Formats: sequence, C-alpha cells, structure tokens
Amino acid sequence: MNHGLEVLRHHPEKPPASVEECVKACLDCLLACTACADACLSEDDVSSMRDCIRLDADCAATCAATVQLLVRSGSEIGREGLIAKLAACAAACSACEEECRKHAAHHAHCKHCAEACKACADACEALMKTLN
Amino acid sequence: MNHGLEVLRHHPEKPPASVEECVKACLDCLLACTACADACLSEDDVSSMRDCIRLDADCAATCAATVQLLVRSGSEIGREGLIAKLAACAAACSACEEECRKHAAHHAHCKHCAEACKACADACEALMKTLN
Amino acid sequence: MNHGLEVLRHHPEKPPASVEECVKACLDCLLACTACADACLSEDDVSSMRDCIRLDADCAATCAATVQLLVRSGSEIGREGLIAKLAACAAACSACEEECRKHAAHHAHCKHCAEACKACADACEALMKTLN
Amino acid sequence: MNHGLEVLRHHPEKPPASVEECVKACLDCLLACTACADACLSEDDVSSMRDCIRLDADCAATCAATVQLLVRSGSEIGREGLIAKLAACAAACSACEEECRKHAAHHAHCKHCAEACKACADACEALMKTLN
Repeated sequence: MNHGLEVLRHHPEKPPASVEECVKACLDCLLACTACADACLSEDDVSSMRDCIRLDADCAATCAATVQLLVRSGSEIGREGLIAKLAACAAACSACEEECRKHAAHHAHCKHCAEACKACADACEALMKTLN
Repeated sequence: MNHGLEVLRHHPEKPPASVEECVKACLDCLLACTACADACLSEDDVSSMRDCIRLDADCAATCAATVQLLVRSGSEIGREGLIAKLAACAAACSACEEECRKHAAHHAHCKHCAEACKACADACEALMKTLN
Repeated sequence: MNHGLEVLRHHPEKPPASVEECVKACLDCLLACTACADACLSEDDVSSMRDCIRLDADCAATCAATVQLLVRSGSEIGREGLIAKLAACAAACSACEEECRKHAAHHAHCKHCAEACKACADACEALMKTLN
Repeated sequence: MNHGLEVLRHHPEKPPASVEECVKACLDCLLACTACADACLSEDDVSSMRDCIRLDADCAATCAATVQLLVRSGSEIGREGLIAKLAACAAACSACEEECRKHAAHHAHCKHCAEACKACADACEALMKTLN
C-alpha cells in the first residue's frame, strides 16, 4: 500500500488519519473477503459454506465502494452519503464476521477473515463518530 | 438487460418484483452516473463540475455494490446489511440528483442523470419499506 | 437502461453505436453472471458448480470494468488499454459461456447466462475490429 | 493487508508468491489511481488533467477486476481469461504511468501514482511469464 498511501497523502485536501485508517481497513477486508469466498468454495463442505460465501461477497463489494467514497471525502460534498455508506459497510462487515466466526475453528481462512471484518467495522464506526 | 433478467428469474430463490425493479434502477443509475462523470469532465466549465463528477462517481460505485447485494438477497442472510446498503444507495442517489439538477439547464447529461438518480433512490426506498 | 443511455448520448464526445451496443451487452452480462453465480450456489449440486461460480464471478468483474472503460472511450487516450480490455472481456465471456453450456440442460439460469456471455463476447469482438 | 494476506495464504489452493505479489501491487495501484484521479480533480489546472483523471479511473477499475481474478486463480479454470486480464491490466497501468509522468514535476500525487502503476505493470508481466 506504500505508493497508494503516498498518493493519498499528497492529495490537495490531505485526508485525516482516521480516513487513511479506514481506507486501509477496507482494502484489507476487501482482499480478505474475496479470498475467503473463494477458499470456502474450495472446501469439501461447500454446501455448509453458502451463507459465508454470500456474506463474504457482499462485504467485499461494500468495502470496494467504501474505499472510493473515502478517497473522495476531502470536500464536505457527499458527507451524508459517506456516513450512510460507513454504516452500510460496518453492517456488512459485522454480518460477515459473525458468520466467519462459526467456521473459524475448522477453516483458518474464516478465522482471519473475521479479524479483517472486525477491524474494518471498527474503523468505519470510529470514522463515523468523527463525522457526525 | 434481457438475458440478465432471465437469469435472475430462474434463480432458485426467485427474487420478488421489487428486487428486480431495484436491480434495473441501480444498473441504469450506474451507467448514467459513470457517463455523466465523464461527460462533465469533457465540458469547458469542468472546474465548476467538480462536485458533480465526485457525486457521480460515488453514486456509480454505490449502485454497483447495491446490485450485487440485491442479486444475493434471496436468503434472509445479510438482510440487515441489505437494508443499510439500500439506505446508503438512496443517500448517494439523492445527493447526486440534487447536484445534477443544478446543471440540468445547460448540460443535458446532468438532466438525464438526475432522472436516473431519482428513479434509483425511489426504487431503493420502495424496497426498504417491504423489508423492514 | 433508458436514463443511462440518454446520458451517454448527451456526452460531448457522443460514443458511436458500436460502443453503446457493447456497453449494453456488458451490463446485461454483468447482471447475468452475478445472478448465475448466486443461483449456482443455491443449487443442490453446488459442488459440481464450483467452476461455473468462479467463471461467472470473473466474467462479472471483467464486464464491470469494461463498462467503465467504454464510457470513457471518447478520446483517443487509453485506446490501447481499451483494446486489451475488450480482448480480456471477450476471453472471460467465452470461458464462462463454455462452462455454462455444460449445465444448460438442467439449470435454466446457466442457459440464459451462456446467451448473455455469447452476446457480450460478440459485442467486444465487433468493437475491437473497429478500433484496430 | 495483513488479515487479507493471511486469508489468501490459508486458501486450500494456496496461491504462489507471484500471485500474492501481483495482488498486492494491484491493490496498491487501485488506491493510488483512485486517489490520484480525485487529487487531479482538486488541482487548479484541472482542465489540463483530464487525460490523467480518465486514465487513473480506467487503471483503478482494471486493477480492481484483476485482483478478483487473481484471488480465484487457484484452479486451471479461467487461465486463458487471467492471462488476457493481466495483459489488459499491464496496458492500463502503462498508459496511466506514462500520463502521470508528464505531471510528476508539479504534482507529487502523480509522481507516486506513476510508481504504483509501474510496479503493478511489472508484477502483471512477471506473473504472465510464469503462466504462458
């Protein structure tokens, strides 16, 4: 993320640290959930992993969109949309974390994915508090 | 959208008409906002169109993610995330519509984009009412 | 797609009909593949549908990116990238079509998805011919 | 990226180091280009940055799709699509790098974005060599 973060830091409206933290958490969660969905699909018990695959995919899609809004959040414009987006992202992350925890004991990818989801939900909620 | 809608209608958990309507509105809005952002960038008064370009891009990203959640909404799983997502999508659409209306008199692409945003916000809100 | 297409037609660098056709085919295929992946996941024989789910997801992601490049294709800038992208999109569509055909007899969603993929691959290839 | 990479490493078909490197480069480039596009839009000379904004957006969209294909690349399925995708990604990155270099002297975000694009193009090309 080194080059990307440098670009962000040289944006004319340099984003605050809380936005940068949230961007990093969303990108980590996007990767975790995309990879977890595909890992679940490779498991022998794939028929038990349907909910996890769906929630992973929902969470990844939501994180991808959130990153975009965060990067463009320098102006006040779109503030209300950003807050609603962070709420949606935290909801998607929490739902995915809860499901991944159920499988964490036998699928290590779910264990790590749950951690990514928790960190991302926390970052979204922390940022929301600074915006309200 | 003919083939895509046929696939949706043959999903084992056939989505209700309200979901299908929302999917169509989101895809229309995704195209409208992506095209409007680029059209704004081509205008001579591009420096006056910054907010519009940003809100277009935010709205397009949000609609793209919403489509994904809608398509996977057959199970109860992820219901809370879907509701939060529809709220975020309606907020992004409304913000973009409001900005596009300001330019509708001199940029026809903004006028049509505002219509797409309004239709999508309405579809998201209509669907939310059936889910709560 | 009505509002979205109107926006596209009012873009200062109005895209030719071949671009508009390709945009429509990509959006149709994006919806078809997103819905087919989720439909496959709901099937009793999900363990036989792994390849289809993966190729559906790859194809949907590729079509989504292609739409974006197409909409911004008014200038000569990025022409080489667009051609490479259309080739990648046609390849993803063809791979997904081939897999979906295997399941078309017992899963109607795969049958319709294969049609969407074929139409999109054809549109990408037709457009490529006009750009080379 | 720590949690996300851990998920990837616990995928039943653990991806080789070359895939992991490419995933990291694509995510870095996705962030760099998304942020650079918005930074360009904030600059006083926005009318000179149109090409850069478009190529940034194209590159970001392409990198986002490439990440998805990479994560699902454990099976042989979709190999041809992946190779075409990597070629398209390298082309988008190279085009964006070339444009960003033109502005690197006066916009630090473009300088860092060019580095991200170069690293991503290199990673895509390195991976392609192992797949052909």
